[in-house]
Amino acid sequence: MKERLNIIKVGGGVVEDVASLASLLSQFAAMQGRKVLVHGGGRLATSMAASLGIESRMVGGRRITDDKMLEVVTMVYGGLVNKNIVAGLQAKGVKAIGLTGADGDIIRSHKRPLKRVKMDDGTEQMVDFGFVGDVDKVDAQFLASLIESGAVPVVAPLTHDGEGHILNTNADTIASTVAQALAEHYEVTLTFCFEKAGVLRDANDDKSVIPLIDEQEASKLIAEGIIAGGMIPKIENAFDAIHKGVRQVIITHSDNIDGSRGTTIK
Amino acid sequence: MKERLNIIKVGGGVVEDVASLASLLSQFAAMQGRKVLVHGGGRLATSMAASLGIESRMVGGRRITDDKMLEVVTMVYGGLVNKNIVAGLQAKGVKAIGLTGADGDIIRSHKRPLKRVKMDDGTEQMVDFGFVGDVDKVDAQFLASLIESGAVPVVAPLTHDGEGHILNTNADTIASTVAQALAEHYEVTLTFCFEKAGVLRDANDDKSVIPLIDEQEASKLIAEGIIAGGMIPKIENAFDAIHKGVRQVIITHSDNIDGSRGTTIK
Repeated sequence: MKERLNIIKVGGGVVEDVASLASLLSQFAAMQGRKVLVHGGGRLATSMAASLGIESRMVGGRRITDDKMLEVVTMVYGGLVNKNIVAGLQAKGVKAIGLTGADGDIIRSHKRPLKRVKMDDGTEQMVDFGFVGDVDKVDAQFLASLIESGAVPVVAPLTHDGEGHILNTNADTIASTVAQALAEHYEVTLTFCFEKAGVLRDANDDKSVIPLIDEQEASKLIAEGIIAGGMIPKIENAFDAIHKGVRQVIITHSDNIDGSRGTTIK
Repeated sequence: MKERLNIIKVGGGVVEDVASLASLLSQFAAMQGRKVLVHGGGRLATSMAASLGIESRMVGGRRITDDKMLEVVTMVYGGLVNKNIVAGLQAKGVKAIGLTGADGDIIRSHKRPLKRVKMDDGTEQMVDFGFVGDVDKVDAQFLASLIESGAVPVVAPLTHDGEGHILNTNADTIASTVAQALAEHYEVTLTFCFEKAGVLRDANDDKSVIPLIDEQEASKLIAEGIIAGGMIPKIENAFDAIHKGVRQVIITHSDNIDGSRGTTIK
């Protein structure tokens, strides 16, 4: 029988709030058993870029990563955020080890080709996202060997192309693809935690959490507009993970990473 | 019999020069056997701090690390420099894994207490270096397990205090203490490489390299003023390493990391 593994993905909104992050790290440290943390960084890169006089360009809710912005995300995600989380977890007795996809070649990606994107005004446009990586493969073997040695990987939203370039990569995608790869070795629960209580029927009411969503229900909720915006790719990532052997995906508030509340995707 | 291990320390002057760094990474990738890279970052942090409007304060040649500067060195050393070196080595087929002292708890330190420092004007002053770490212990077991798994540690000049704080730590000291700790597991050669050909009799003549220095010779060269300035702590670090079981220490140019030229400390 496979051992259980918890993969917790924590979004930029939690990472940039000192109190929320502290709460999350305490809960994560208290979790028993094998575990992995995947973090975003979001607006911390935007504010650092602003301090450096670098303009943040977003298209369709996604960041354009030019060479200057790549430096910023490499510093902020791979350095500042990742190392502070690692040091914070170490202080709580967790043998955390910070990793980007380049470290140990754990996540290889390729630079995203030009992509057709629907703009806010409804027109479509071919967009060059710059130094953004779409994941090709995850080295589950090496990650599993680290986990079996007692280490707890803390993964930043950066990958590499194997040709010397770091690439900016969506943290949800990293969490989902890492979970899929590790599902061969473990019985994986993947938990996306953020500032809301789960997938909500009413975006303004944290009590309207939908406890369980299957694929049929998800299609219905998307058609009804209840699942919308940034939640759509999150749900797609969740089902991708389920199809590739992840036991369950939970979407919940960062105050509740044990998954006892929130939305379970099955 | 112990396996051989090469630990290469590369200084900030090499790291910040694109061509020198590329040459160094090629040589390092070509080295056979078990190996570790320790890097500095030096002036890259100074220029990033300047871009952010943060003043760099140096006392007696050493950086004062206040909270703002700690953010900068965490970003620049742990993120930008470390991850670009890792990605560059991966492109050359090296299974590099970037680490600060916090990652896997490999290097624990304590914040340096106030220290008496000789100022440029000859007076002495008690100086608070800020978030600077003096090394307490290295987890050689975990480093050795990574190395035996085929990974090549790339270590940034950052440690942690075990209480959640990253601390800025001199890269030569990191290289020397890591070498000492790993000497229990391996027959270690520690190579400091920088912009000069070795320890020089005449600072302006790269042909005046002193090929071999023992402790007696070192005392003499220091007394004569031939070994001076930043070279003194480097030599002290070298002898510390030798006393703790490191087989040999080499000080050489970054174009020549195989140690066939340069100064050998024994």
